Parts: sequence; structure tokens; C-alpha cells
Amino acid sequence: MEFNVEIKDYERVDDLHRNGYMLIQDPKRFCFGVDAVLLSGFASAPKGGQVIDLGTGTGVIPILMKAKTQAAHFVGLEIQPESAEMAKRSVALNGLEESIDIVEGDIKMAAELFKPSSFDVVTSNPPYMESGGGIKNDFSPKAIARHEVLCTLDDVAYAAERLLKFGGKFYMVHRPYRLADIICSLRGHKLEPKRIRFVHPYSGREPNMVLVEAVRSGKPMLKVMPPLVIYKDNGEYTDEIVDIYYN
Amino acid sequence: MEFNVEIKDYERVDDLHRNGYMLIQDPKRFCFGVDAVLLSGFASAPKGGQVIDLGTGTGVIPILMKAKTQAAHFVGLEIQPESAEMAKRSVALNGLEESIDIVEGDIKMAAELFKPSSFDVVTSNPPYMESGGGIKNDFSPKAIARHEVLCTLDDVAYAAERLLKFGGKFYMVHRPYRLADIICSLRGHKLEPKRIRFVHPYSGREPNMVLVEAVRSGKPMLKVMPPLVIYKDNGEYTDEIVDIYYN
Repeated sequence: MEFNVEIKDYERVDDLHRNGYMLIQDPKRFCFGVDAVLLSGFASAPKGGQVIDLGTGTGVIPILMKAKTQAAHFVGLEIQPESAEMAKRSVALNGLEESIDIVEGDIKMAAELFKPSSFDVVTSNPPYMESGGGIKNDFSPKAIARHEVLCTLDDVAYAAERLLKFGGKFYMVHRPYRLADIICSLRGHKLEPKRIRFVHPYSGREPNMVLVEAVRSGKPMLKVMPPLVIYKDNGEYTDEIVDIYYN
Repeated sequence: MEFNVEIKDYERVDDLHRNGYMLIQDPKRFCFGVDAVLLSGFASAPKGGQVIDLGTGTGVIPILMKAKTQAAHFVGLEIQPESAEMAKRSVALNGLEESIDIVEGDIKMAAELFKPSSFDVVTSNPPYMESGGGIKNDFSPKAIARHEVLCTLDDVAYAAERLLKFGGKFYMVHRPYRLADIICSLRGHKLEPKRIRFVHPYSGREPNMVLVEAVRSGKPMLKVMPPLVIYKDNGEYTDEIVDIYYN
């Protein structure tokens, strides 16, 4: 299938290796990374479920999850107009307008923009770094995607709390150094951490990412999963990473 | 050196492989495990420092830390009279009465038993399991050591908060499934988690223990360390474990 979608001359189109789906990206802005791919591999969604991605950027997470799950419908919420517009074109490029809505809006307003307790799954690959020093006045696309200038961890947790059904699941990728913030913020918003997986660049090294699953109003009992290792000692992807990317 | 200390006929005496130190244990009660050894390897104490171990049991942690650190003085607080008495004999057996005081008392009373803000380091290998169902009426020595029948995680954190100097360090070994409880309880008591290390029986498997370092009134910024693996694939101890046990 081919769809008539404009690609600007400064944009690139990447193959997502899932159902033939492609993604439009602007290298001057923020290109998706391994974190988004790992989150879409870690998350699951029930058949027929409603899913929302908070701070969707290029729309990579809903598009990958559309390919991997049998959820009925996805929303990608994005505050930056240019990113939202580009994500909409990626949705159109893949003919997914029926399945994925890209909505331009603020995570802090999510509880007003959408019906409360109406989602089975919330996903987010939020900015990792706290906003401080000079960065708090930097509203460049990369700063917004990486630093908590427009939205904090607590804002994301608050939105997820409001949007999720009772028992609904929240999936996030973040940095291990924020783990105490993550766990306390989630618990503070009735999102009980149930499953955590650390991502290690190499076996035996410290982790540089963490995948978290929390359940709305879940009971305390956390499963720390085996390490997810990216590279073999020879520098090739491990079998598990190849599987997440391509299978 | 030999010290004249009574060993009861149902007790056993184990070599701690540190400075020739020995430990008296009663197999009917609770014998120390790999968790205590790993905690004593993970913890550190400043030269000349004051250290207290909350729920010391056999006294294994102060005795191992006496061998490994240059701290000036250790206290081991233990609620069970028979355990405290046995730990005192282990201290005497090693001629460590000048360096280690075993005090019979309740962790919940620690803030009254000792001067507030007077310790550089607090260690604890507390009961791991929440008290519930039939266990809450079981006051056997093993139940007390394993289940939160006499003291909860929050009681330990409260005691550590009160006993530690500003900037003092709290070291604990616990179970990964309690990690959210651990982090929230520590933060709730001004003990900021700064370093976490998961202990995995085998590489690539899920962890079954977690070592935590928190700093009294520390700033948020957590270091998740590389996995600590107990066994090689061939079932032998890894080099790091051999090092912690014997070197």
C-alpha cells in the first residue's frame, strides 16, 4: 500500500520493521531511540483495549504498539505542534488513521482532555532529566523532550492516575538514577509498581534504563525481572534485543 | 588467643573467615545466611565511626564489620534475650568486648535507648516478610527473624532516621519484591536511597536479594550498581562472592 503523504526535504523516513510501518522523523528535533522500542516491547495491551501515550513525540510508541498488540484504539498526546503534525503524517503514511489519533495538547491537561478512567493502558517515555539551571529557560524541541521543562514525572503520574481504569496498566521507560522519584511518584498517584526491568548496555555493567509497569490501585508486590542486556561482549545485539526489534 | 566462653551442647561454632573470628549459632534458632555476609561486604564505615546493627541476631554483622572496617565501636541491638545472650558470648569468644556491645532491646525503642543523631552508620538485616494470616501470632525465633511480627520496615527506618547523624549512612539487605515499600519507607524517614545493588543467584536470572544504601537527608540521585551474581553457570561461587566471603 502507498499513501500520499508529504515528506519535507529535511525529514527522514525510517523503517520500523513491524508490519512494514514507517516513521517520519526530523533529525533537528528528537529522533526515537532504543528506549521507545524497549518500552513498546515491554508494554502489553488487552485485545480491544484503549491505549494512550503521554508525550508521544514522533508517535513511534503507538505505531509500534499498534503492530504488536490487538488493542482497539490508540491516542498519542503531544504538546509540540510540529511534532504532533509530523506524527499525524506518520499515522497517515501507514494508513492508521482509524486506529491512532494524534492529539496536540498538554499532559498536565490530559485529565480534562479525555474521559477519566477510560483507558486500559497508559504508556510514556517522558523527559528524564530534572529541569534546573539554564535548561529551565530552554524550550527547544530537544530540551522539551529530554528535560522536565514542560512536564514532570509527577505530572505524568497524575495524568496516568486520572486516565486509567481501576486495574489499568501504566508503562514507562526512565533512568535508573531517578528510581526513587519514580517509585514514590507512582505510589503517590495510586499506581503500584508491579514489574521493573533494568536495561544494561552489557552484561555485568550497571543499567542505563529502567522499564516500569504499575497497576492502578494494585496491591504491593514488585517483580524485579532478569536484566535486559543490549549488547553481547562482541558488540552485537543480544538475541533478546534482536527479537524486540525485528521479530 | 583463646577465651573461656561456654558453648552449649546444642550450639555450633562457625569460622567467619575474618581475623579468625568465630560465631556461635543455634540451628534451632536462626543461622546467618549469605544475606548477612553480603550486607557486611556492601556496607562501609568511617575510621573511628560509631555503628549500630538493628536486629543483630547472632551478632554476625557487627563481628564481620569489626573485621572489615576501622570503625571505633559497634552496637548490636537484639530483642530476643536468648539471641542477645548468644551474641554476647560470640563477642567474648573473639575477645571483642571493648569494640562490640550487644544490647537486648526493641528496635521500636531504639530512639530512646540511644542518643539521637549519634551514629555514623546503621545496618540492618530485618525480617523480610510482612506479617499476616497465622504468622502474626507466631513468636517463634524463626518467625520473629523472618516476619514483621515484632518490627516492620517502617520501624527500622524510623529508628535509623533518629539514630543517624546528618549525612550518616543506612545499609540494609532485603527482598526485591519489597522494593517499593523499601524506597517509600526510607524516603518517608529522610533516608535517601543512594546506592542499590541487586543480588542474582545466576547471571541473567531475576534477583532474590537487594542491598540498599541510604543517606540521612541526602539529595535524590540513585546509583543502581551492576548485578551481584552469586554462582557461575557451573555452580561455583563467582570471584566476587569468593572475595566477599574470604578475602
